Amino acid sequence: MNYEIVIVGHGRYPDGVLSALQLLIGTTEGIKAFNLDEQTTHEKFEKQLTELLSEHERVLVFADMTGGAPHQIVSRLVLEGNQPHQYVISSAPLNLMLDLYAKSLTGFEDDTIEGELQHTLTLSKQLIEILPDRMNTNSATAPVPDMTHQDEGDGI
Amino acid sequence: MNYEIVIVGHGRYPDGVLSALQLLIGTTEGIKAFNLDEQTTHEKFEKQLTELLSEHERVLVFADMTGGAPHQIVSRLVLEGNQPHQYVISSAPLNLMLDLYAKSLTGFEDDTIEGELQHTLTLSKQLIEILPDRMNTNSATAPVPDMTHQDEGDGI
Repeated sequence: MNYEIVIVGHGRYPDGVLSALQLLIGTTEGIKAFNLDEQTTHEKFEKQLTELLSEHERVLVFADMTGGAPHQIVSRLVLEGNQPHQYVISSAPLNLMLDLYAKSLTGFEDDTIEGELQHTLTLSKQLIEILPDRMNTNSATAPVPDMTHQDEGDGI
Repeated sequence: MNYEIVIVGHGRYPDGVLSALQLLIGTTEGIKAFNLDEQTTHEKFEKQLTELLSEHERVLVFADMTGGAPHQIVSRLVLEGNQPHQYVISSAPLNLMLDLYAKSLTGFEDDTIEGELQHTLTLSKQLIEILPDRMNTNSATAPVPDMTHQDEGDGI
């Protein structure tokens, strides 16, 4: 993989995502989780991210919640750094993180990654569903298979 | 709260969500997390959910990933049970779960909850963003404040 994958969030949410990815894909190699929890000051959290962003030219950060402190801190650092290959995706559902992490394992191309991020984001939004579908949801139009293919092999 | 809130997912993802909610709202009272992890068979997982759904008439379940095993199992149980006040939302980002949990603390009305779920789901999709916004994202049109107000008080 050529892009470092990073998950930032409140409490142990990032660790929870790692745990799910480990179960679904069998590895979390190349992903780092930064929990902003009771043991972590904002200063320490920012220092960790600053180091990571300075050490890696290509980074894809997932932030648990748009507008939350982890998202605000990492967005400011990425904007200040102004590196052309560092991205932040916020409020991502698990399936989006799963899909992009799986793709990252074989590597992204610099000139197509932005299109891939947008495409996955669009699919991901369509996957958010409410059941039962007596409610007027988007379930009839959501293209499911591409986002969940990692899940088919072992029945997990 | 009148609706039981339940989070189901792979690995310790549900525990991670609980940890974030604890930090953001200060409580996880009335929420249960069911981790489908290495220590939990599908049978045990299904039994736990069957019990819960039979004990509570009003339930709102968040499943980590549309099409994943936790989502499939709980959706089947809810459809078979055919209770009018049991819902499953899948592939939800954290901000959606945060918002609906916060609302559940003061209680939902049976005749308006479906509209509230749909409304929150629509807002939640608009919050999924990619930075930097040199990419053609939806960041210019996303209504942010309502979904993140819990986050303002203490800077978390």
